[in-house]
Amino acid sequence: MKKYIFGVDVGGTAIKLGFFTVEGELLDKWEIPTRTENHSEHVLPDIAKQIEEKLAEKGINKEEVAGVGFGVPGPVTAEGVIKMNANLGWRDKEVAKELSQLTGLTCKGGNDVKTAGLGEMWKGSAAKYTNAVFLTLGTGVGAAIIVEGKVILGAMGAAGEIGHIKVDMEETRSCGCGGLGCAEQYASAPGLKRMALELLEKYDMPSLLRGKDVDAKAVFDAYKEGDDLAEQVVEKFGHYLGYALAATAAVVDPEAFIIGGGVSKAGEVLLKVVQKYYKEYVWPGCREKEFVLATLGNDAGIYGAASYVL
Amino acid sequence: MKKYIFGVDVGGTAIKLGFFTVEGELLDKWEIPTRTENHSEHVLPDIAKQIEEKLAEKGINKEEVAGVGFGVPGPVTAEGVIKMNANLGWRDKEVAKELSQLTGLTCKGGNDVKTAGLGEMWKGSAAKYTNAVFLTLGTGVGAAIIVEGKVILGAMGAAGEIGHIKVDMEETRSCGCGGLGCAEQYASAPGLKRMALELLEKYDMPSLLRGKDVDAKAVFDAYKEGDDLAEQVVEKFGHYLGYALAATAAVVDPEAFIIGGGVSKAGEVLLKVVQKYYKEYVWPGCREKEFVLATLGNDAGIYGAASYVL
Repeated sequence: MKKYIFGVDVGGTAIKLGFFTVEGELLDKWEIPTRTENHSEHVLPDIAKQIEEKLAEKGINKEEVAGVGFGVPGPVTAEGVIKMNANLGWRDKEVAKELSQLTGLTCKGGNDVKTAGLGEMWKGSAAKYTNAVFLTLGTGVGAAIIVEGKVILGAMGAAGEIGHIKVDMEETRSCGCGGLGCAEQYASAPGLKRMALELLEKYDMPSLLRGKDVDAKAVFDAYKEGDDLAEQVVEKFGHYLGYALAATAAVVDPEAFIIGGGVSKAGEVLLKVVQKYYKEYVWPGCREKEFVLATLGNDAGIYGAASYVL
Repeated sequence: MKKYIFGVDVGGTAIKLGFFTVEGELLDKWEIPTRTENHSEHVLPDIAKQIEEKLAEKGINKEEVAGVGFGVPGPVTAEGVIKMNANLGWRDKEVAKELSQLTGLTCKGGNDVKTAGLGEMWKGSAAKYTNAVFLTLGTGVGAAIIVEGKVILGAMGAAGEIGHIKVDMEETRSCGCGGLGCAEQYASAPGLKRMALELLEKYDMPSLLRGKDVDAKAVFDAYKEGDDLAEQVVEKFGHYLGYALAATAAVVDPEAFIIGGGVSKAGEVLLKVVQKYYKEYVWPGCREKEFVLATLGNDAGIYGAASYVL
């Protein structure tokens, strides 16, 4: 009988692993570094080794394991193939197939943001919704679009790339994608930092952020203290993200927006400012949506990964 | 054995009816006026009467009819209930249930734009796509969002309201929805007319449109003749609609955009100008999408309505 699942969240610097019951109880979690040398050739063997060791440690037979789920950055096909991943140096990598051969277990997976969305759907804030948008605000801005209980992929796995909705027609700096004025340029952690540094240089006004190491957390902390400059940054953040979410609502009409990722640690104040601008820009019929924080934090990825196997 | 289906497209001025085989062959189509007096109390009985008469005329027994599908303007719940429809004066109207009682047949239906999208999926341009956006450009701008072969509804039936994506932050005139700068204000038939009239008043430049009855068709006709003023209007149209479709692609990543509705009669030139701006604004990974014209024209609604019953 299948009693257990592994969930693996492959990041550019660390691989997070979780060992779950099929009901979704997290029995154990740990992480190992991502060895990216030689096109990350060690990554899948490292994962397989961790799984073997964990089963040996717990005295569990492979027969009892339903499989291994994984999440990786970038687009992943329904068959678990990565077309190209710059961070890991992978190209046409059949992750599901290779990991399955290495472990002798069923392996399934997908994009990391979509995987985190699945995690929140399975055991987190999204569990009570049928139609929702799960958003991660971190180094980038990405989303898992949940329609009738499923994370949609789109034609090429690019559904949910809402960080690249153009939100500023006047922008002259390029986004990482090559576009100008993408939501990600303002609503990500680096975007918040850049906006703060620009305002600090442009104006003489006093600010708690002056002379400090400025990052997204520092900006929101200063905002909570009533800092005027931080307020300008956070309002811009809210304006641009609220706008992108309003456009998103016009397309898929979700019940709720679930916001996760490092930047979301700012908490309720972040939801408030995004919601304020969202309501200003959205079609009136979609004005009353719920805005909630993701609850699984960094574990969303391993939960979601495990859920692929179910 | 069930051999036939009726498809009914209820509009504000006319009700279109189609009589189909279950394979989707259109055997007969006709229309009757929409009698909107007294909260459109005659509409459903009129439809039922048409169905009875058609069956009598053809000598067909009700046993042979799989059911009646319908499309109506505005949001419709999955149970076929209209919460509110201003044109028809309906409120909490159980259309599917009432029509079923009146006809003694299974009745199912949905929103008219989504229904037309279903029609194009069943027998029109969308048939070859699994993920697509079917767009109607007419009095308004609406879309059916097709995900994995199904038209999605969203939390409240508002998925696809992409005519209300805000595309101009500087706009001071209100859209019908109460918002400012919605795509529908520029990409609909009335929007094209208004933009043309404004430019005619603002500038002295000669134009084929001067002294004419200006409408969407006249604008595109003049554009095809190389008229400078019409070109300005059409470029604005393309810019705003291309922008809204770029945002849409970032959310659902379709294979194709299928464009229908009265304005789409302008043909390939319309696709070209929309696609030009779409490519400028969209995330590079979604740049190469197909743009095609809808093929069923005014019949998309009756085809889609019939398909509900299958």
